[in-house]
Amino acid sequence: MHELVKELFLRKFDNPILSKLTDAAILEARDKRLAFTTDSYVVRPLFFPGGDIGKLAICGTVNDLSVVGARPLFISCGLIIEEGLDYSTLELIAESMREAAELARVKVVTGDLKVVEKGSADKLFINTSGIGGIDDGIQLSTKRIEAGDRIIINGPIASHGVSVLSSREGFDFESRIESDLAPLNDLISTALCASDQIKFMRDPTRGGLATTLNEMASASEFGIMIEETDIPVDDDVKGVCELLGFDPLYIGNEGKVVIVVGPEDVEKVCECMRAHELGRNAQIIGEVVAGPKQKVCMKTLIGGTRIVDMLVGDQLPRIC
Amino acid sequence: MHELVKELFLRKFDNPILSKLTDAAILEARDKRLAFTTDSYVVRPLFFPGGDIGKLAICGTVNDLSVVGARPLFISCGLIIEEGLDYSTLELIAESMREAAELARVKVVTGDLKVVEKGSADKLFINTSGIGGIDDGIQLSTKRIEAGDRIIINGPIASHGVSVLSSREGFDFESRIESDLAPLNDLISTALCASDQIKFMRDPTRGGLATTLNEMASASEFGIMIEETDIPVDDDVKGVCELLGFDPLYIGNEGKVVIVVGPEDVEKVCECMRAHELGRNAQIIGEVVAGPKQKVCMKTLIGGTRIVDMLVGDQLPRIC
Repeated sequence: MHELVKELFLRKFDNPILSKLTDAAILEARDKRLAFTTDSYVVRPLFFPGGDIGKLAICGTVNDLSVVGARPLFISCGLIIEEGLDYSTLELIAESMREAAELARVKVVTGDLKVVEKGSADKLFINTSGIGGIDDGIQLSTKRIEAGDRIIINGPIASHGVSVLSSREGFDFESRIESDLAPLNDLISTALCASDQIKFMRDPTRGGLATTLNEMASASEFGIMIEETDIPVDDDVKGVCELLGFDPLYIGNEGKVVIVVGPEDVEKVCECMRAHELGRNAQIIGEVVAGPKQKVCMKTLIGGTRIVDMLVGDQLPRIC
Repeated sequence: MHELVKELFLRKFDNPILSKLTDAAILEARDKRLAFTTDSYVVRPLFFPGGDIGKLAICGTVNDLSVVGARPLFISCGLIIEEGLDYSTLELIAESMREAAELARVKVVTGDLKVVEKGSADKLFINTSGIGGIDDGIQLSTKRIEAGDRIIINGPIASHGVSVLSSREGFDFESRIESDLAPLNDLISTALCASDQIKFMRDPTRGGLATTLNEMASASEFGIMIEETDIPVDDDVKGVCELLGFDPLYIGNEGKVVIVVGPEDVEKVCECMRAHELGRNAQIIGEVVAGPKQKVCMKTLIGGTRIVDMLVGDQLPRIC
């Protein structure tokens, strides 16, 4: 089994670096600055509308590299498999990793496989770490954020979390909600080319848009004001959230990026994102304000203003 | 719990890159060639004589970088924690990771933490990925291996696997066998400085010395002949192996390196390794021979010669 699975992944990720099978992959580095990130994926169930744990593991790491302004280059893949997992399941997941890596133009160059006894893991966990190269001149930092900067998101929120939760609990909603899972490197590099006034980016994954905005505000000297009416949420996602008592602001996304951009370039960046498949519904959702400092506030539908807090307590478990 | 554990590891690994808490760590790259590796650690039990899963996760990745000739620089740390694991256990493991990282002079620069429900993992799994820099002039490759090259190991084999197995099964042997777990980067860089005739290296972890030698032979055009009398095995390790019916050649190590070196420099490399604490018992154990091609043979104690095969079937599970 161990050898079969190893061969399966070697075949899928076939490239000259990986196929050397040295203890560590040897890479040519052309960039002066590198980005390095890691994430373990424990999503349950392994398959959900719009993706699976394999696509998630590639896209998630690609996106973590992209939002710091890096071009994703190399990915590692560490599998922890529970004994007894179907080989056919692994084949589907390996193929979806291959497709995602091809789409994002990254190479899986090194890997590891551990098999544990039945009951010692839940089917499959995947760790991907990634290395990206950062072009000279790219400087993304919360330190660059100023009052007056605008906040853009590339499309409607909360579909990933709702998709995973619905398929986990076996809800049978009228419309099947698909995860927004996608590699954002192409969209982000397009935006970065369009403007040097992009100050900071983050992908609103675990904890959703509210958490990401709070992290941005906390790390800056300013506050953030968003407009409830401007935050894109698809109607079916909104419906499920209302039904289950979830606030879409706190639901994780896997194909969204929040961009802070200087006011002079905000239209240019929006235009250029809307020309990209993954940014068709890009929207300005708010702006950086002088105060209240380090807080996120929202102008509500009915005209009031409320504080959007950090989530207290547990976030939705195992959606990534 | 999630926040507590995150803070614990941030405190232990404190450094300016990690503390920025960006989605990906930003690194300055000074090397033209990089090494990149990943390993998930699922060792059971979490603590064993001579180490624990945390020290193992740092040393294992440090060693995988070192044997390809790289200076280990940056490490990522992905934790998968089973709900209910004691915080005090995590404190011990975090501290031992910190110590190992300090000893190996590597920085843990990025991390991830996932908590899964009770029963969905076995206490704790750790993935570490690592980046190393490769000096100009270093060229380690099985392609450089030639007949006449000598094979060195830095000390007695099989203590790691025996140590983990003994503590897992609760054997109460007279002498407590300690794992050889150690970061080898300093020893290896000393050896590389001493000679440019070091052709190839590998750390004989899972599958032990026999597997590593077979992998080397398979990847070259030559055979390998080792001398049973020259292979260092501590008496207590030998005793336990005899008792349990294990062959020390197939038992995993975590502080050993097998080095292939040209005959003209073999004494020089041995001397220089013996001057290092982790190479005190370095020994020439055999040589590269014209044939039988891609096979490993061993001159036995009683004067015969036998083939040392690849291990068929399962290797000892969860010793790393």
